Amino acid sequence: MKSKIRIGIVGYGNLGRGVEQAISQNPDLELVAIFTRRPPDQIEARGNLVSIADIDSYQDKIDVMILCGGSSRDLPRQGPLYAARFNTVDSFDLHSRIPAYFEEVDAAARSAGKLSLISVGWDPGLFSLARLMFQSILPEGKSYTFWGKGVSQGHSVAIRQIPGVRDAVQYTVPVPATVEKIRQGQIPVLTPRQAHQRICYVVAEPGADTGEIEETIKTMPGYFADYDTTVHFITGEEFAASHTGMPHGGFVIRTGKTGGKHKQQTEFRLALESNPQFTGSVLTACARAVYRMHKTGAIGACTIFDLPLGYLSPKSPEDLRKELL
Amino acid sequence: MKSKIRIGIVGYGNLGRGVEQAISQNPDLELVAIFTRRPPDQIEARGNLVSIADIDSYQDKIDVMILCGGSSRDLPRQGPLYAARFNTVDSFDLHSRIPAYFEEVDAAARSAGKLSLISVGWDPGLFSLARLMFQSILPEGKSYTFWGKGVSQGHSVAIRQIPGVRDAVQYTVPVPATVEKIRQGQIPVLTPRQAHQRICYVVAEPGADTGEIEETIKTMPGYFADYDTTVHFITGEEFAASHTGMPHGGFVIRTGKTGGKHKQQTEFRLALESNPQFTGSVLTACARAVYRMHKTGAIGACTIFDLPLGYLSPKSPEDLRKELL
Repeated sequence: MKSKIRIGIVGYGNLGRGVEQAISQNPDLELVAIFTRRPPDQIEARGNLVSIADIDSYQDKIDVMILCGGSSRDLPRQGPLYAARFNTVDSFDLHSRIPAYFEEVDAAARSAGKLSLISVGWDPGLFSLARLMFQSILPEGKSYTFWGKGVSQGHSVAIRQIPGVRDAVQYTVPVPATVEKIRQGQIPVLTPRQAHQRICYVVAEPGADTGEIEETIKTMPGYFADYDTTVHFITGEEFAASHTGMPHGGFVIRTGKTGGKHKQQTEFRLALESNPQFTGSVLTACARAVYRMHKTGAIGACTIFDLPLGYLSPKSPEDLRKELL
Repeated sequence: MKSKIRIGIVGYGNLGRGVEQAISQNPDLELVAIFTRRPPDQIEARGNLVSIADIDSYQDKIDVMILCGGSSRDLPRQGPLYAARFNTVDSFDLHSRIPAYFEEVDAAARSAGKLSLISVGWDPGLFSLARLMFQSILPEGKSYTFWGKGVSQGHSVAIRQIPGVRDAVQYTVPVPATVEKIRQGQIPVLTPRQAHQRICYVVAEPGADTGEIEETIKTMPGYFADYDTTVHFITGEEFAASHTGMPHGGFVIRTGKTGGKHKQQTEFRLALESNPQFTGSVLTACARAVYRMHKTGAIGACTIFDLPLGYLSPKSPEDLRKELL
């Protein structure tokens, strides 16, 4: 029997749990350990929980480490740190800081002879790949990225910080009339308001002024002021019953022109009932790819643009050509 | 100024013309020559038409040759022949023969130190990539490929061979109710009839028995008997006005499950007003990729599964990370 690819997970939040479940769906992968900062004996997990303090002793026991920390506080430190010790995969998603992050991880991985795939998931990740392919194939045209319907954690947190709010969730939703126009082949220039709307479900504290809460949300600069925002006040029961999932999705669409007159449209779409589980599934397939690419001698940092996608699959190149081409 | 990538085209039918127009949209590419079996002075083209007999004298003048011949009669001979002389790209699409074709092209290209990308376009090609990615990311699930609405050349030709038919075109169309079901997350097992329907527009010869023509079409084994087929008889004028384009498209869709209960859906969709121009645009971006991959030392035959997709773009890895990731 072929030996399994040995995977480690750093960070055991929603994404780490998503990776854990994804590994269980892939018989060629083995989850060796989940590294956490919390006392491991206080957490329930299927996998082997280990204190992050002991991670260095796993350098010969793990082929690829999947970094599941946050992009603001965890990855800027953990990315370069673990890239110097392991092959890694991460979902660093602060777009403007990606070039600097790439350089740091690249230097660390390169000097250690390791390979690190940064900024994968679905956006950045699969959506980035769609933008790249569509633009390369149809150089004359216009691309759009729409997100949702899905929960935006940042916007939900912003609402929860308003006095009088007990709980809240915010869904980002593409504006249906705009989507319809673009699918029909129009290529409008869009304001944020024309592209997405924001729908909020809020549980107010007893006696709170809901009118004031609604006004505060709708006029919040940076988060809501530039969008058509709808606020629904609901009970704690309704919230618990219908708004604790983490759905998301969206699509990348491009309308291009060839030969001066023929419209050509390409679209990549996702509809996800669980954002962290899907992202975890992407990272897991990517861990397999990193293992195989590193075997060919590749080192340093790379992105999904550098990855021959056949490496994502457990199948051999021969089987892929026969079954999927 | 950076020198341009020098491209040649073999075969000047619809696909060759599609590649010609695509090259004109890409300033980093230069069309050096179009090779044809017909007397070059009898054809109208923007590019430099050259007799195929002179192709060997272009070995130092062309970086990548795009083979635009047919899969049945041209490519089985031309693929290995030109792979031994040039880097090549082709759209060989006879699925069952791909493994054998790959081996032949691989041997020819490898011994010449050249690189050949086979079987690209949109299916096989982009759709293959979607099938691969979706299956790798969501191992528990079911994928579907739908084609259309679009013209099937093979089915159109089959109708034209029926006595009494002057002209005909056949559109393959996904069955709307089935598509709706799948987009909603159901994963039915489909017969051909449940997946696609066939809609035919036929111009009959004066005095022909249209009832008999319709019956002959609908009962034709292999082509129509297994499908719900609709036949419309129209005039030659209507045909010329509305049915001489080559639209096509379709989509690859997968519904998977993660964590035992969350449905995750991924879809890649194309809506094309000109099939040969879009396919030509894919081959053209792939020619750029082959040029760049060959520069890194890659030789032999490869498929889109082996290609780091960043090579499709004229942009540098740094710019891609900054602009598209």
